[in-house]
Amino acid sequence: MKACLLVVVALVLFSSLGESKRRFSRFKDVSTRRVKSRDQTIPTPDEFFFANLVDHYSFVHPTQTYQMRYLVTDAYYLGKGYPIFFYAGNEGDIYSFYNNTGFMFTLASEFGALVVFAEHRYYGESLPFGNQSYTKENIGYLTSEQAMADYAVFISDYKAQKPELSESKVVVFGGSYGGMLASWLRMRYPNVFVGALAASAPIWQFEGQMPRGGEQFSEVATRDFLLSGPECPTGIRAGFEEIMIQAGRGQPGLDLLTEQFMLCSPLQSDQVYDLVSFLENGYVYMAMTDYPSASNFLQPMPAWPVDVSCQYWLHKKPTSPEELFTAMRLSVGVYYNYTGEAGSCFDINEDISSNLGDQAWNYQACTEMIMPVQTNGKTDMFLPAPWIYSDYVTYCQETFDVTPRPGWTDISFWGHQISAASNIIFSNGMLDPWRPGGVTYNISSSVTAIIIQHGAHHLDLRTPLPSDPLSVQMARSQETEIIRSWLE
Amino acid sequence: MKACLLVVVALVLFSSLGESKRRFSRFKDVSTRRVKSRDQTIPTPDEFFFANLVDHYSFVHPTQTYQMRYLVTDAYYLGKGYPIFFYAGNEGDIYSFYNNTGFMFTLASEFGALVVFAEHRYYGESLPFGNQSYTKENIGYLTSEQAMADYAVFISDYKAQKPELSESKVVVFGGSYGGMLASWLRMRYPNVFVGALAASAPIWQFEGQMPRGGEQFSEVATRDFLLSGPECPTGIRAGFEEIMIQAGRGQPGLDLLTEQFMLCSPLQSDQVYDLVSFLENGYVYMAMTDYPSASNFLQPMPAWPVDVSCQYWLHKKPTSPEELFTAMRLSVGVYYNYTGEAGSCFDINEDISSNLGDQAWNYQACTEMIMPVQTNGKTDMFLPAPWIYSDYVTYCQETFDVTPRPGWTDISFWGHQISAASNIIFSNGMLDPWRPGGVTYNISSSVTAIIIQHGAHHLDLRTPLPSDPLSVQMARSQETEIIRSWLE
Repeated sequence: MKACLLVVVALVLFSSLGESKRRFSRFKDVSTRRVKSRDQTIPTPDEFFFANLVDHYSFVHPTQTYQMRYLVTDAYYLGKGYPIFFYAGNEGDIYSFYNNTGFMFTLASEFGALVVFAEHRYYGESLPFGNQSYTKENIGYLTSEQAMADYAVFISDYKAQKPELSESKVVVFGGSYGGMLASWLRMRYPNVFVGALAASAPIWQFEGQMPRGGEQFSEVATRDFLLSGPECPTGIRAGFEEIMIQAGRGQPGLDLLTEQFMLCSPLQSDQVYDLVSFLENGYVYMAMTDYPSASNFLQPMPAWPVDVSCQYWLHKKPTSPEELFTAMRLSVGVYYNYTGEAGSCFDINEDISSNLGDQAWNYQACTEMIMPVQTNGKTDMFLPAPWIYSDYVTYCQETFDVTPRPGWTDISFWGHQISAASNIIFSNGMLDPWRPGGVTYNISSSVTAIIIQHGAHHLDLRTPLPSDPLSVQMARSQETEIIRSWLE
Repeated sequence: MKACLLVVVALVLFSSLGESKRRFSRFKDVSTRRVKSRDQTIPTPDEFFFANLVDHYSFVHPTQTYQMRYLVTDAYYLGKGYPIFFYAGNEGDIYSFYNNTGFMFTLASEFGALVVFAEHRYYGESLPFGNQSYTKENIGYLTSEQAMADYAVFISDYKAQKPELSESKVVVFGGSYGGMLASWLRMRYPNVFVGALAASAPIWQFEGQMPRGGEQFSEVATRDFLLSGPECPTGIRAGFEEIMIQAGRGQPGLDLLTEQFMLCSPLQSDQVYDLVSFLENGYVYMAMTDYPSASNFLQPMPAWPVDVSCQYWLHKKPTSPEELFTAMRLSVGVYYNYTGEAGSCFDINEDISSNLGDQAWNYQACTEMIMPVQTNGKTDMFLPAPWIYSDYVTYCQETFDVTPRPGWTDISFWGHQISAASNIIFSNGMLDPWRPGGVTYNISSSVTAIIIQHGAHHLDLRTPLPSDPLSVQMARSQETEIIRSWLE
C-alpha cells in the first residue's frame, strides 16, 4: 500500500496557504517498474486470463465481462487433494506481488500447493474497459467488493474446470491492501477460502475507526528513524522546517533549494510542496520497506535502509541550511537513488506525476478506502498536516466527482466487529507505519495476531533468508503451523 | 415464498406438447391483498421511508437513491440498551409480513425490543424507479445482495441517528425467502446482526444444491394430503389425469371442464395448463399454509385446510369425470373461495395474471434465486414435470433477456459450506413443502436446526395461539432461549 500521507500533507498545507492550486503527489505504482525481476528461488509462472463479470452485483449489463489476469505455478504442486495457495492481488501489476511474496513458495513447497496469483481489476493488464477504464463512466466498477467477487468466482470456476482440484482447500494470502482483501475474503467467502494470512493489513485504518490518541502512522515512521539515533529524526524535522523558511524568502530561497537538493530543473514557488512530498515519501517508504536484506520492492535498496539513511545525520549535527539540505538529499537518496542509476539530479516532477495505477488507487481512496493519515510535526518528524475529512471530501469531489462512503466500508468490511470471523492470521511488523491500523491482538482462538518485532511492511511474506531476524523467522513458523491446522 | 412448481409444470408440459405458446402462471403476490388486516395483538406500526442507494456495489451512479419503506413499533420497547428485532422483508408488501409474523411481537414483549420491518426493494412501495422499476433498464438492481446491503445500511444508519440505540443488538428475523435473507444477513454482516431466526428458509433449494434422490417439494405437499387419508392424493392425481384425457377429446372435453370446474369463461384449448396450474397452485399453497388455526396469509382459510380440502375425497371414491372434477373443484375451493366471497365461478385468467410483485420475483428466480421444483406423477399427486434447466434458461432469456447465474448464488450465499457461520436458527416444519431445501440438522453449536413436527411454512413465526400444536410451542420456546443467549 502506498502511503496516503503526502496527499493529505499537500492538501492541508495548500489549504492553509489559501492556494487554489492543489497537487496530490503520489509515486508511480510499483506495477510499472522492474516487475519481471524476481529472486531465483521463485519459479516462473504461467500467465492466463479469465473472463470475469464487470458487475457481479447487478444484472444491468448481465453479460459484460473483462479479462482478469492470473498467474499459476505448479512447481510445488503434488496433485489431487493438495491445496491451492491464492494471492489476492492488490493495487498494482500482479507480477510485482508475485515477485515479492517468496514466503508463499516456501509454504507451497512445504504443503505441495498449487500457487495462483490473481490481478486486481483496474490494475496491471486487468483493465475492464482497456485504455478507457479510467473514464468517469467506466471507473465506477472499481470497488473492493467487486474485486473480491472476481477472486471468489474465478477460483471457484478454476477448481470446477479441473476435477482434480475439486477437493483442494484454498488458502488466501495478501499483504497490505492485498492482506485486507485476504482477511475480508475469508470473512465474506469462508465457503471458498479455508483461511487467510493477512500480512500488514490495516483493516482499521479507516475514517472513524482509528482509536483517538492512538499511535499514528507518522509516529511509527519517525520512531523507525529514531531507532537509528535521535539525531536522525530531529535533523529531518529541522530540514523540513528549513525548507519552509527558505521558501518564504522567495527566489533566493528557491535557488538555494534547487542547488542543495540537486534538482533537475529550477524549483518554482508552486512546487515547494512537491519537493516536501518527494522527501516525505522517500522517508515514509524507507520506513515501510526497512527490511533486513537488500530489496527491490518499491525501489532498489540496501539492507536496513533507514540505518543507511540516518548515517548522514548521526554525529554530524548539521545546522546551517546547506548542511541540513545536504544531509536530507543524501539520506533520502538512499530511497531514490541508492544504486546511482537514477542519475545525478532529482526530478521531483517525474516522481510526483501520477500514472494509471495511482489514479486507480486514488479513486479507491476516494470511494471506499478512506484511510486517514496525519502528521503534527511534534511527535513525528514531518510538517504538521492534520486530517480534515471535509477537505478530503472536497478533493474527491473535485478530482473524481465522487463522495467517499466511509459508513459503507464500516458495514461491508465489519469494522471492529470481526469476532464472528475465523481462520485469519493478522501479522504486523513493529517497524511498519501501517501497524497502528492493523489487528495487533488476538480476536479469538482462530483470529490471531502475530507481531514481528523487527518487521517492516509485510516482511513475513518475503522470501526467507538466513539473515532474517529471529522475530520474522518465528512469525513464519507460527504462520506455517496455523496454516497446517487449516489444511488438516 | 411462492412455489415455482407450476412455472415448471407449465413449461415442461408445453414443451412436450410442442406448443410454441408458453404461459407461466403465478398467483398474485400476497402484497396486493388484505395487507392492512392483522390480528388485534399486533400493534399498529408507524410507516417511514429511508433514502437507500440504488447500487451499493459500484460508483457508476454514486448518488442515486430510492425511498425504502419501513415500519416501526415501539409498543414493547423498554429503552436504551434493549434490542432491535428486525424483519428482513421478502418478496411482497411489507405489511403482509408485518401482519403475519406475530411471534416477533411476542418476543419483543419478552425482551423489550423495538420492532422494525424493512421492505424489500422492488416490492410494495419500495420501488427504486417508481412505476418504471420493472423495465429492462431498471430492474437489474433487483438482487438479494443489494437488498441485504439495503438492510445493513439502513439499520446501521437508523441506530446512528438515535444515540439511545447505539448499543442495541439487532436480531434479524425472516420467513421463507425472508428467512433466507435473515440467515445470509447474519453470515454477511455479523457486525450488524447478532443472530438470525431463519424460519422455513430453503437456502439449499438451488440448482445444483438439492441432494439427488432426496425428498422433493412435491412429495412433501403430497404427503400432507396423504396424512388426511390416502384417498385424497390418489383422487387428486386421478383428477389431474382425467383433465388431460378430457382435454384430448377436444371441444366436448373443454366444455365438460368449463362446466364441472364452474369456470367464469369457456376454457380454450390453450388454457388447459392454466387450469392445471390454477389447481396445482391451490393444493400446493394449502400444503404450505396448512396451519392449525384459521389464517389469512395467502388466502382466508380454515384451520388445517388440507384436512378440510380432503373431506371431498375421503370415503367417496369418485371415479367418473364428473365426480372427479366436482371433488377437485370443491377441494381446491378451500383455498380459492373458502369464504364464498370470491364469487360463484372460478376466474383462472384473473388468478394467473401476473402482477408487479410476481414479475419481480420471477426476475429474481431467473437471475439468482434459481430454485428447482419438479414433479413426477408417481411419488407425488401432480402431473409429471421434470426440472430441465436448459428449458428454464430459455424461458428466462425469452422473458427477461437474462441468463441465470446459479454458480454465483453458490458462491455468494455459501451453498452447503456454512460451517463458518454462527448464531443462526433454521426452523422448518415437517408439513412444509419447502423443508427439503432447508437446513434440517445442526451445523454447529450456534447454527442449529429446529424441526416442527406439525408445522407448515414458517408456522413458528405466526402469533402464538392456545390451539397451537405442542411441537410449535416447543420450537418457539427453544427459539426464545437461543435468542436470549445472543442478547446476554
